[in-house]
Amino acid sequence: MAGNSFGQLFRITTFGESHGLAVGVIIDGVPPGFDLDLAAIQTEMDRRRPGQSKVVTMRKEPDKVEIMSGMFEGKTTGTPLMMIVHNSNARPGDYDNIKDFFRPGHADYTYLKKYGIRDYRGGGRASARETVGRVAAGAVAKQLLARRGVRIVAYTLRAGGIACKQVDLDVIEKNPMRACDLEAAELMVTRVDEIRSQVDSIGGIIECRIMGVPVGLGEPVFDKLDADLAKAILSIPATKGIEFGTGFAAADMTGSQHNDPMTPDGFLSNNAGGILGGISNGNEIVFRTVIKPTSSIAHEQQTINTSGEPVTIRVTGRHDPCLCPRAVPVVEAMTALVLEDHFKRQESLGHSCYAPAG
Amino acid sequence: MAGNSFGQLFRITTFGESHGLAVGVIIDGVPPGFDLDLAAIQTEMDRRRPGQSKVVTMRKEPDKVEIMSGMFEGKTTGTPLMMIVHNSNARPGDYDNIKDFFRPGHADYTYLKKYGIRDYRGGGRASARETVGRVAAGAVAKQLLARRGVRIVAYTLRAGGIACKQVDLDVIEKNPMRACDLEAAELMVTRVDEIRSQVDSIGGIIECRIMGVPVGLGEPVFDKLDADLAKAILSIPATKGIEFGTGFAAADMTGSQHNDPMTPDGFLSNNAGGILGGISNGNEIVFRTVIKPTSSIAHEQQTINTSGEPVTIRVTGRHDPCLCPRAVPVVEAMTALVLEDHFKRQESLGHSCYAPAG
Amino acid sequence: MAGNSFGQLFRITTFGESHGLAVGVIIDGVPPGFDLDLAAIQTEMDRRRPGQSKVVTMRKEPDKVEIMSGMFEGKTTGTPLMMIVHNSNARPGDYDNIKDFFRPGHADYTYLKKYGIRDYRGGGRASARETVGRVAAGAVAKQLLARRGVRIVAYTLRAGGIACKQVDLDVIEKNPMRACDLEAAELMVTRVDEIRSQVDSIGGIIECRIMGVPVGLGEPVFDKLDADLAKAILSIPATKGIEFGTGFAAADMTGSQHNDPMTPDGFLSNNAGGILGGISNGNEIVFRTVIKPTSSIAHEQQTINTSGEPVTIRVTGRHDPCLCPRAVPVVEAMTALVLEDHFKRQESLGHSCYAPAG
Amino acid sequence: MAGNSFGQLFRITTFGESHGLAVGVIIDGVPPGFDLDLAAIQTEMDRRRPGQSKVVTMRKEPDKVEIMSGMFEGKTTGTPLMMIVHNSNARPGDYDNIKDFFRPGHADYTYLKKYGIRDYRGGGRASARETVGRVAAGAVAKQLLARRGVRIVAYTLRAGGIACKQVDLDVIEKNPMRACDLEAAELMVTRVDEIRSQVDSIGGIIECRIMGVPVGLGEPVFDKLDADLAKAILSIPATKGIEFGTGFAAADMTGSQHNDPMTPDGFLSNNAGGILGGISNGNEIVFRTVIKPTSSIAHEQQTINTSGEPVTIRVTGRHDPCLCPRAVPVVEAMTALVLEDHFKRQESLGHSCYAPAG
Repeated sequence: MAGNSFGQLFRITTFGESHGLAVGVIIDGVPPGFDLDLAAIQTEMDRRRPGQSKVVTMRKEPDKVEIMSGMFEGKTTGTPLMMIVHNSNARPGDYDNIKDFFRPGHADYTYLKKYGIRDYRGGGRASARETVGRVAAGAVAKQLLARRGVRIVAYTLRAGGIACKQVDLDVIEKNPMRACDLEAAELMVTRVDEIRSQVDSIGGIIECRIMGVPVGLGEPVFDKLDADLAKAILSIPATKGIEFGTGFAAADMTGSQHNDPMTPDGFLSNNAGGILGGISNGNEIVFRTVIKPTSSIAHEQQTINTSGEPVTIRVTGRHDPCLCPRAVPVVEAMTALVLEDHFKRQESLGHSCYAPAG
Repeated sequence: MAGNSFGQLFRITTFGESHGLAVGVIIDGVPPGFDLDLAAIQTEMDRRRPGQSKVVTMRKEPDKVEIMSGMFEGKTTGTPLMMIVHNSNARPGDYDNIKDFFRPGHADYTYLKKYGIRDYRGGGRASARETVGRVAAGAVAKQLLARRGVRIVAYTLRAGGIACKQVDLDVIEKNPMRACDLEAAELMVTRVDEIRSQVDSIGGIIECRIMGVPVGLGEPVFDKLDADLAKAILSIPATKGIEFGTGFAAADMTGSQHNDPMTPDGFLSNNAGGILGGISNGNEIVFRTVIKPTSSIAHEQQTINTSGEPVTIRVTGRHDPCLCPRAVPVVEAMTALVLEDHFKRQESLGHSCYAPAG
Repeated sequence: MAGNSFGQLFRITTFGESHGLAVGVIIDGVPPGFDLDLAAIQTEMDRRRPGQSKVVTMRKEPDKVEIMSGMFEGKTTGTPLMMIVHNSNARPGDYDNIKDFFRPGHADYTYLKKYGIRDYRGGGRASARETVGRVAAGAVAKQLLARRGVRIVAYTLRAGGIACKQVDLDVIEKNPMRACDLEAAELMVTRVDEIRSQVDSIGGIIECRIMGVPVGLGEPVFDKLDADLAKAILSIPATKGIEFGTGFAAADMTGSQHNDPMTPDGFLSNNAGGILGGISNGNEIVFRTVIKPTSSIAHEQQTINTSGEPVTIRVTGRHDPCLCPRAVPVVEAMTALVLEDHFKRQESLGHSCYAPAG
Repeated sequence: MAGNSFGQLFRITTFGESHGLAVGVIIDGVPPGFDLDLAAIQTEMDRRRPGQSKVVTMRKEPDKVEIMSGMFEGKTTGTPLMMIVHNSNARPGDYDNIKDFFRPGHADYTYLKKYGIRDYRGGGRASARETVGRVAAGAVAKQLLARRGVRIVAYTLRAGGIACKQVDLDVIEKNPMRACDLEAAELMVTRVDEIRSQVDSIGGIIECRIMGVPVGLGEPVFDKLDADLAKAILSIPATKGIEFGTGFAAADMTGSQHNDPMTPDGFLSNNAGGILGGISNGNEIVFRTVIKPTSSIAHEQQTINTSGEPVTIRVTGRHDPCLCPRAVPVVEAMTALVLEDHFKRQESLGHSCYAPAG
């Protein structure tokens, strides 16, 4: 109820603060007898971790995942899978200078007002380091989904005002921005260099595509597949919006333009983004989320201290000039968690009327 | 788990199909001893019901709410409040012509594939008539929130390509589009007339403002206030996206532009939309949602029948040319449900460190 | 969260007060395409209703169930099934004499202290009339379980100090006490007549047997099958305990006596009551619950009024001298709800390793 | 949903297997700003751990708790509190001899049938070692309850056929049986020595008293305080029943005997066990649970192996001859978890009409 769990039948609970001893996750609902690929989990962790390229923060955290329970002789047992990452690079001292200040764009002020106490070390629980547990759990979900024929790919579609001109899924892991267009990626890297020199940061848009989802996933009314994805994505730090299919552009369309015509071979278009009435329609599921520019900037900013007095602040330290590259695996992870959960919910219906994905 | 409940401590469960006997809702978690204003509930129902103006469907449904439990001598008792609306205008026969067709843009196909059975009468459970229960429950939540000093106002910000130029909350209920700008509203009405004559429909954008929320609402990590609002809003039929504060425009901003400076008198801007780290910051909460153009249009469209054969279809009958005016109270209702729930969650923390809303 | 819902995947939410307009239930999670037998639901209602025999209260309530949603052309659709029973015999005036008194053994005092308000008409929500919704929902669960080969039978094992000497399932519905032994039943009826003349009441024990449950139902750790059954049964008004298999007698046994030996043909005994480690073992599941003597008695009793002053009270009106006969279908209903829920939970595991019931 | 979480607003999720790397728990819902007494947590762990006296198993496990998150500068922060105990005494090799056998009275058979895979090392997740996380979390709940004036005391009331003649709370921690009567305790110890020499085991009854609970805790209908306690207690390994107040003896009582008379100074008796209509009535809450004799005995027993063939088995190793002494802190822990959760639920009602405990 305090909001640190997510999902119904494939349910995760995360713990840990940025500069505490460890961060991690318990997954309750892992099917038994599954050959979990531990290396694949670590690969996802590596995509999320800092220090992986020159466009992200230079902090060095190996983020080595250890599985403490739920496995026996290399297989899952159906009991809770606990994964932990010890914080090796904790430097609480770094944050003494901000302990009495509310950093603009951060949750410092809201946490203190909500709880009456704040772990100011790197944002504590509000740090994006909290997403370690999400990515670890998402990596498990991805493996379960692969078995179902489902593939999730997210990428930077736009950053710093530069838009990708094409969507080439093959280049995403070949450029540090995780963009879907190499040319745009180069421009984005240049823009990152520039903004870094200005001690500022940039925002962007991440697009996510889910392939291979059969017709029938999603619970109508409140737990629509898009509603649950929206919650999942908006729970990621720094996201400020989400849209499905044509999204906000639908506001200016007519019904005859927006309705996707159906044929015996499938839909002729995908304005709906693969979901109708909250239920997957067999089309590719497509959504976009906007990532705000990193709040931690060394730019001088106006704020107040914990005594309520006006002060100026420069948030120095090792921060990402653009959050998109490292947010991509988090978007994929949250998406995977929602999908695996909805597959299990569909299975509990006790019948299988899935149509093949179109 | 089948997704017909929403909320944790202020929790609703809805029931009913478009052309069944009744639709309604149970609220579990209504505080005891509250003087519920039944007329105010009916007022919200009237804002949602068809036939209220010339820009919406001409169907006549009085949508009279009856309270069947949870009250005693005019006060709530803390037990479940059940509200029911009998369907007086059910015309199942109207739908014989579509029972073998999948209407484009509708959930006909996905429901049938998911469940293996479909109540085709007016969309059954997938009909927007399902929102009757939401609005009734939201009307209760609104009254509870008013007591807390919270006010929620939604309005049509854009429709059919026409944008409001100003936000005037006083004119919303004075124009049939529920737009926040009377001049724009007139243009929108003209556009509705035009699109109706073209047997087509238009989409739009609804903006919602929440005033008077103190600092501290929202559970960090998964149940962030914006994440829960996103789920709530995306669960409304026809919504395709949501954005908070500057929303998707944040993609092209820098950190120094987007961070809201703080002063002893509050924030100097509201790019965040009133939420930081998933927790309300005392600013006005602002979000927008996109409403797709009505799927039911008499335009000839390509689709398939339940045997999988290609056919064309014109969805005739009494439909809204633009969903925005009737969706406005639904957006407000879902917003109210989220807020009342989060107030109760905050109270269960067992302390009151709310700062006054800024 | 306010406690009016039960179950996870087969989930019910009930509403209604004893002398309000109606009582009822929403079931969320009914599988689609099921031919629901409405007469069978009514039969269960009739087993629960007052006035059915001379050993129970003489109140006349037809308790006619109406299904308001979730069905189409005689089949369930997978959407919420709402069932309502209008209160035809409400006589609120009957209770004016108790509105200022706390009836001993009742929840009058605790409700008022908890909520600060009390619907005193017949106990309001605390009345056993609340179980109408449970029995209606349980009747649906029973039909779903029958399809799975599961049968649930409860009966009065002991009442007013008289114990059944044998367990004959065929006689249960042939005697007004719903006892499993006709001879004992006759003695019980005599005892009921006697106690009625003394304006007093008697308690008893109900035993429940569940046949046909395969191995594998129940989630270990917190949601053990016996733990969930215990919660279900102890949530029934007037129950004060539950025991499985040999139950409390196990306290005086040794491990070599209590452990059930296994053979290739099944277990040689059933001290465990059909559950090991919280999971069904294929044996018959057996438990007993104790029903306290009816609290509403015309005996003069010492109590206080709402002003805290000492008074004496005689609770007159039409009350059951022994709750067992009418509690039997409620015990079966709650048992059915737990089992159907756990079947669905097991199905969400995504594999079928059920062993046949032994 | 897979059943490894417990509670609503004070919610725990446990993980770990008997011979895995670690066991532990996440608590979500710890109030912020609380000075947690770590030594008091360890004290509860020590009451539960093996090797503490001659009447329990001789295994040596220090069971040292480490807190990995949720604290800052000695105070809780309102974020998830993760506590872990590394398994220092894991001897997986000890269990090679049982890996192909189903131990009578254990969950070996049911786990394998449910999951298709079984961690046979010491029972894996089905081991009572799983209760480490419960006791750690319960120790936190106890501290929070102490602040509310609530005290929970459990003790062995009966074991091996020997009944305590008096309830002296002061002697419980002064005898290895945790009995409430020193004379009975001595007889019990003698009985334990005897049964151990017979390579057998004994059962018993634990009674629990909760003092200082105000009127008003418990959610009526399904989440009654007694229903939630019943689930909590029946989820503890080896429990086979629970009864409140006079419990099963109520079956033979009349209403005039069982109803507790009320006076301005409180109730004159406590047959109800402190709960009326599922809500605490201000009286002491009293319940008893039966603990079956330890299933692991070196007695020769009839069983089958995983190939379904008949075999005999002697379960050797270091086992408790009577589970009661070590189950006492587990009963207290589960009780504390239920109470703290219900306090928070009551607080979310948004008003305080608690009457002082009587």
